[in-house]
Amino acid sequence: MFHGIYAPIPTPFDSSGEIAWQKLRDNLDWWGKTSLHGIVPAGTNGEAVLLDGVEKTRLFAFVRENLPAEKKVIAGTGTESARETIRLNREAAENGADAALVITPHYFTGCMSDEALENYYLHVAESSPLPVFLYNMPRNTNLNMSAGLVARLSTHPNITGIKDSGGNIVQIGKIIEKADSDFVVFAGSAGFLLSSLLLGAAGGTLALANVMPEDCVEIYSLYHDGKMEQARNLQLNLLEINDAVTARYGVAGLKAAMDLIGHYGGPPRLPLLPASEQEKRQLQEIMQQCRLL
Amino acid sequence: MFHGIYAPIPTPFDSSGEIAWQKLRDNLDWWGKTSLHGIVPAGTNGEAVLLDGVEKTRLFAFVRENLPAEKKVIAGTGTESARETIRLNREAAENGADAALVITPHYFTGCMSDEALENYYLHVAESSPLPVFLYNMPRNTNLNMSAGLVARLSTHPNITGIKDSGGNIVQIGKIIEKADSDFVVFAGSAGFLLSSLLLGAAGGTLALANVMPEDCVEIYSLYHDGKMEQARNLQLNLLEINDAVTARYGVAGLKAAMDLIGHYGGPPRLPLLPASEQEKRQLQEIMQQCRLL
Amino acid sequence: MFHGIYAPIPTPFDSSGEIAWQKLRDNLDWWGKTSLHGIVPAGTNGEAVLLDGVEKTRLFAFVRENLPAEKKVIAGTGTESARETIRLNREAAENGADAALVITPHYFTGCMSDEALENYYLHVAESSPLPVFLYNMPRNTNLNMSAGLVARLSTHPNITGIKDSGGNIVQIGKIIEKADSDFVVFAGSAGFLLSSLLLGAAGGTLALANVMPEDCVEIYSLYHDGKMEQARNLQLNLLEINDAVTARYGVAGLKAAMDLIGHYGGPPRLPLLPASEQEKRQLQEIMQQCRLL
Amino acid sequence: MFHGIYAPIPTPFDSSGEIAWQKLRDNLDWWGKTSLHGIVPAGTNGEAVLLDGVEKTRLFAFVRENLPAEKKVIAGTGTESARETIRLNREAAENGADAALVITPHYFTGCMSDEALENYYLHVAESSPLPVFLYNMPRNTNLNMSAGLVARLSTHPNITGIKDSGGNIVQIGKIIEKADSDFVVFAGSAGFLLSSLLLGAAGGTLALANVMPEDCVEIYSLYHDGKMEQARNLQLNLLEINDAVTARYGVAGLKAAMDLIGHYGGPPRLPLLPASEQEKRQLQEIMQQCRLL
Repeated sequence: MFHGIYAPIPTPFDSSGEIAWQKLRDNLDWWGKTSLHGIVPAGTNGEAVLLDGVEKTRLFAFVRENLPAEKKVIAGTGTESARETIRLNREAAENGADAALVITPHYFTGCMSDEALENYYLHVAESSPLPVFLYNMPRNTNLNMSAGLVARLSTHPNITGIKDSGGNIVQIGKIIEKADSDFVVFAGSAGFLLSSLLLGAAGGTLALANVMPEDCVEIYSLYHDGKMEQARNLQLNLLEINDAVTARYGVAGLKAAMDLIGHYGGPPRLPLLPASEQEKRQLQEIMQQCRLL
Repeated sequence: MFHGIYAPIPTPFDSSGEIAWQKLRDNLDWWGKTSLHGIVPAGTNGEAVLLDGVEKTRLFAFVRENLPAEKKVIAGTGTESARETIRLNREAAENGADAALVITPHYFTGCMSDEALENYYLHVAESSPLPVFLYNMPRNTNLNMSAGLVARLSTHPNITGIKDSGGNIVQIGKIIEKADSDFVVFAGSAGFLLSSLLLGAAGGTLALANVMPEDCVEIYSLYHDGKMEQARNLQLNLLEINDAVTARYGVAGLKAAMDLIGHYGGPPRLPLLPASEQEKRQLQEIMQQCRLL
Repeated sequence: MFHGIYAPIPTPFDSSGEIAWQKLRDNLDWWGKTSLHGIVPAGTNGEAVLLDGVEKTRLFAFVRENLPAEKKVIAGTGTESARETIRLNREAAENGADAALVITPHYFTGCMSDEALENYYLHVAESSPLPVFLYNMPRNTNLNMSAGLVARLSTHPNITGIKDSGGNIVQIGKIIEKADSDFVVFAGSAGFLLSSLLLGAAGGTLALANVMPEDCVEIYSLYHDGKMEQARNLQLNLLEINDAVTARYGVAGLKAAMDLIGHYGGPPRLPLLPASEQEKRQLQEIMQQCRLL
Repeated sequence: MFHGIYAPIPTPFDSSGEIAWQKLRDNLDWWGKTSLHGIVPAGTNGEAVLLDGVEKTRLFAFVRENLPAEKKVIAGTGTESARETIRLNREAAENGADAALVITPHYFTGCMSDEALENYYLHVAESSPLPVFLYNMPRNTNLNMSAGLVARLSTHPNITGIKDSGGNIVQIGKIIEKADSDFVVFAGSAGFLLSSLLLGAAGGTLALANVMPEDCVEIYSLYHDGKMEQARNLQLNLLEINDAVTARYGVAGLKAAMDLIGHYGGPPRLPLLPASEQEKRQLQEIMQQCRLL
């Protein structure tokens, strides 16, 4: 049911820091015409931790309303708190989302044992009207879900899949090997998309898909058509630009890239700083090198 | 102006997960009669990340109303978002808090350069009606504020001090050496209270002060009376129990310890799990060994 | 020139801790009859840091003498010290090795900047009579060679390739993309062998190849025959046993596995402890599950 | 028996990389006339991992011969290998050392459980003709000895003390609280000397003591004379220069500082790079600021 390439979209803000709804509509118009299989609002790149609950709900509704019906919406509903996450899952369901993406709570890192995480996800999944995607994001959470834990959770009927952004390809392999056969594994970054597909992943939800949707989908298609060498060449060619719009320049870099390709990125919210002029120039160079500009 | 020993209080919940206001009043009655210099609501031990904004505001007001006027209140107002932190600073001021404790935003760890953190704190301090305490908590945030950054921020008239929970005594020394002379340094855990006082810290805000307020204040007093050997013996004697109610058993352990001494701890909110029976027994043993029970 | 599957062999010791030469000959006889492309003596699994210089030299000679000529020998010559590494490179050359595997020096982690590592490897490569393989082993060295550094070093005529045991598949992709076209990239563990081959790696030097040489070579062959699904199934099937003989039970586990399949593993040297009876039983179970026993 | 301030001396090399014995004699002449309580050859700052076994033995003998009898010698004998460490302990004993400093083996980090480390140290202590000091150096070994492990080892009659360079003051407190009453705890860096003394440490073995022996000894004396405020001021004043000759510029920085004060530092061995001109200028400035130049 869930497969292919999703874009975890940035939330556009105007210069006063409010959500720029019209700009978002323009962006959605564009993404809606691409080959993307779906959209993820209020994920890491959506600056979820900088949005309040009301904004998230409006965002879920707005994205659904402004996308073609065949594109799926996986709503980023995870917070530190089980109560708030459950509340947001209900809001997402009422506003048309197809699934909920629930990040590992992590502030109390030292207490987030496998037992605590298992209990949390089961509790959330029980009360969620939407199928739940686990979201493993060690770079931001300083926490990694083990393959064994993911495999155990995969047996719950309302836990549908995982976005694994950790990039540990051995772990991704173990999850695929051990989890329920219909459990959906999404690569969490374009850097390891092809490697994940090769091991059996169903697709990816990729920051890079915001600015290079067709290239990301092409890797997916080439792989499924058995055109391995072309898939590899495209994958290798995207590593540098993918780095730039993720780890190296962060959300601000992704937004600057959106601006550079003629869509709207705009400034992030504080504490994030906008990309500096020097960072924008470096980004532009990298985008030119991979023929994105 | 700010000195001595503060307790970063746990937020009591009833069995349905709602704030147990009457239990909180009882606890505050007790803390109010101790030698503590102040109280910190909605810090890490207050499960701040599991409280919503309305709860935090009510908590600030309730703590102020139920404490003797001579006890100070430092409100935990920091969140990931500058907007929300600024809003909570205003709420805290309107509800009688004496200062705001602002944790480093950290979800976007890789982007939290010294430049970003400096910009964030200056922005928050400019718009805060309350004096601001920096809050360095590497164990939970996976981020450390450098002594140089703290020293630069210490020159801002509305940045009053820091709670440093990192426990790096060399860094605490460097902060004291480099920061403005009236900058208030608080040890963030009882484990390094005496070492911090020796280097010039003004006091501490200590999880252990919730359950052993008089012992924590006594280290402070013995140090200031020049009774170094007694201070050391007490400090060494408290290391084990301090470990138990902080890193080892976390907030759930602190709450279990509150229950064990006859006040109210109760359950934490999910995703935190309550202390297991085995953990409670181990805690009880440790508390007996240091004559707390 | 270098490609395929290499086994980084354990060094067998007798009960008094001396190298068990006759046991080694027996093991080499077996490995020599398998499809392995080569052998790596005195690597991490060879307990190189627990061997003295004389033992290493004898080991290089002994392995060469007891292997068929068509099997290559890549000698583990890297130490913390440039002087000693250079000396061992000469010994390895005089004793018939085909290349030298040189681990990143790492004790002075904080000083091992890209500049220092680049200078080190150029210095070693200049004076080495053998082609040099870089050896990136973050789990043991707490140090990672960046793709950019590897790419720069790949242009040196005497730096032939890298064994990358880090398992970061994005980094392996970047190395392949940026390095000289004839630079040889070897996966450093069976867990990410297929993923590495897919991106263009020339092969692997794999602890698992000591006990399952034909399965490891089969992944390599299936991949080159374009039999992707069979390759994937075999890859996924090997993840658990690979974990057991590497990260989970370490060199002692690898040696126990050698014993279990009827060759000689024997005890490691101190400070390493031999596998416990419980570890051996768990290992045996895992080996049975993947039909190795 | 062991107390006070020790200098873990750098090993001087000439421009061809050989040990500069005459320069070492000159340095020892100077250190011998200071208030230092002892000398530690072949520690981290002595580039022990870059010396061969013969050099270490000659170094132990040479240091002993060129120091006044009342200065103690603690020989750095620890290596990755139990065999080699035991051999060096015997050499050190035959060449007049008073004790052996044995670092945690660490290459096989994942296998260095408390059980493995306990077994290792008991094995080494049993066969050592010299009293053994444990050496905990997490920054270089990526491994930390727990306070519980140290306390257990402290009961062995031939395990005399620990040099703890981790700088975790809570851990140092726990070791002092739990270990045998005559167990000798040495701070491993000048940055936390006073804090350690306050909790009951017997002294320190400090890189900074190589270039500022009298200041380091003065902290020790002031503390024992109860002159806490003077001790603190001196401690705070030394933090910056201590940083410079340890973490910031490493062994090369320490050697450059030796040169700057008119003794011999010289170049480190590869892979260590000598301090750059810019680093030397920064070091000079810092030394001037704390009136060392």
